[in-house]
Amino acid sequence: MKQAYVIKIGGNIIDDEQKLAVFLKNFATSGDKAALILVHGGGKTATRLAEKLGIMQKMVDGRRITDAETLKIVTMVYAGYINKNIVAQLQSNGCNAIGLSGADANAILAHKRRVSGNTDYGFAGDVDEVNGALLKTLLEQGLSIVLAPVTHNKKGQLLNTNADTIAQETAKALSAFYEVTLIYSFEKPGVLLEVNNDQSVISSINRENYRRLKSEQKIFAGMIPKLDNAFAALDNGVKKVIIGKAEALPLLIAGKEGTTIMNE
Amino acid sequence: MKQAYVIKIGGNIIDDEQKLAVFLKNFATSGDKAALILVHGGGKTATRLAEKLGIMQKMVDGRRITDAETLKIVTMVYAGYINKNIVAQLQSNGCNAIGLSGADANAILAHKRRVSGNTDYGFAGDVDEVNGALLKTLLEQGLSIVLAPVTHNKKGQLLNTNADTIAQETAKALSAFYEVTLIYSFEKPGVLLEVNNDQSVISSINRENYRRLKSEQKIFAGMIPKLDNAFAALDNGVKKVIIGKAEALPLLIAGKEGTTIMNE
Repeated sequence: MKQAYVIKIGGNIIDDEQKLAVFLKNFATSGDKAALILVHGGGKTATRLAEKLGIMQKMVDGRRITDAETLKIVTMVYAGYINKNIVAQLQSNGCNAIGLSGADANAILAHKRRVSGNTDYGFAGDVDEVNGALLKTLLEQGLSIVLAPVTHNKKGQLLNTNADTIAQETAKALSAFYEVTLIYSFEKPGVLLEVNNDQSVISSINRENYRRLKSEQKIFAGMIPKLDNAFAALDNGVKKVIIGKAEALPLLIAGKEGTTIMNE
Repeated sequence: MKQAYVIKIGGNIIDDEQKLAVFLKNFATSGDKAALILVHGGGKTATRLAEKLGIMQKMVDGRRITDAETLKIVTMVYAGYINKNIVAQLQSNGCNAIGLSGADANAILAHKRRVSGNTDYGFAGDVDEVNGALLKTLLEQGLSIVLAPVTHNKKGQLLNTNADTIAQETAKALSAFYEVTLIYSFEKPGVLLEVNNDQSVISSINRENYRRLKSEQKIFAGMIPKLDNAFAALDNGVKKVIIGKAEALPLLIAGKEGTTIMNE
């Protein structure tokens, strides 16, 4: 089975022009002959644009409420400015990239998040289905895919969608056709035993030592949802999940840095 | 040879939510089994956003100068907001659309417009090549293509590019694979004999009667560049060019309304 890499980059990398350039150069030359999918979040550009336009960001429990004006900004910034600049930079590095929102070619179908208690998240989308067959067709044309975190409901409505979730669902959907590695690349070198010690990276985690590490409270609480999601991906056909520093992408792919999460 | 329609919609249609909805509904059901490409301009959203952000639009001889801030807005609005909303609406009408900028899959290569006299147009792009083979590959997957007027130079630079030119160059490039009809749809019912009389549409123009109409000064000066471009397209393999009202798209395709420009 052919290899595919689904690589999520965090907002901190997107906001740092130099780090982003290094990352994209590495991405362009990554995984010789493997299928490549990049999933990007938004960074601070959307927030800054909203501030300049005097649009208040409504937050509930740390989650942004996507009202109509915020959705417009998210669509402009994520699916327009960030996505197209990433694609143009990849093209300049010899990587034939194509940028897509979830509406394009019906790549990612979602539904508007249901009102929960008294909280209406507005135009936030929860993923129903990633169109793995379509992505495979594009990948087989030698294209690398760059996914923006904007989806649609097939009824004409665009929806703001969490990029981590898109990466995970995309990895799952591609597992029908590829041996998929899902990489979450961000500003930390991996899952740490000591939260402030970058040297304390746990190089590999399987179900058994995850249970032990949790019971010994050696895993930073903030990492637990990420790791639970990683194991959920493994349950759905993804081969392995790697968490690590964006600048070290070639070493993450080679399994020489970061934390690798596998069933065995 | 299979039929392809390259259809440009003007900014006035994009700015009018209801007219746009009617147009997209018609587009979605157009040209049964024919290949469909929609090219959109920008409308007033970009200008309004620039005003809100206090960015001055610099104009020279009626042409906008694309400075770095304007390019950012153009990328956000054209390749993001407008392109993705059109795609989502087409999807809701059962048309499997994919939205592309010229950077995506290297669809449209351009170069930064050379400084002319004392005028530097900034990040304005002049088209070098439309990737007809790539567009054909996507069309053969049953996709309809929606092109935003943003291109790239393959060196990482996005460029603001005239949508009429993109439509024309796309029609030419696809002529290697399809029998191409190029449609310019806008707010007027076609080429008029009397500029203020919508009943005076010239239903067909060939080279011979174009020469006569021009010598008799019966063609409104503003239409001459459009018609010269239409004949240039015909010289480069395009089968026919149709100019007419966006709302009448099915009738334009059927040749029952608008002005048809053909060699014979």
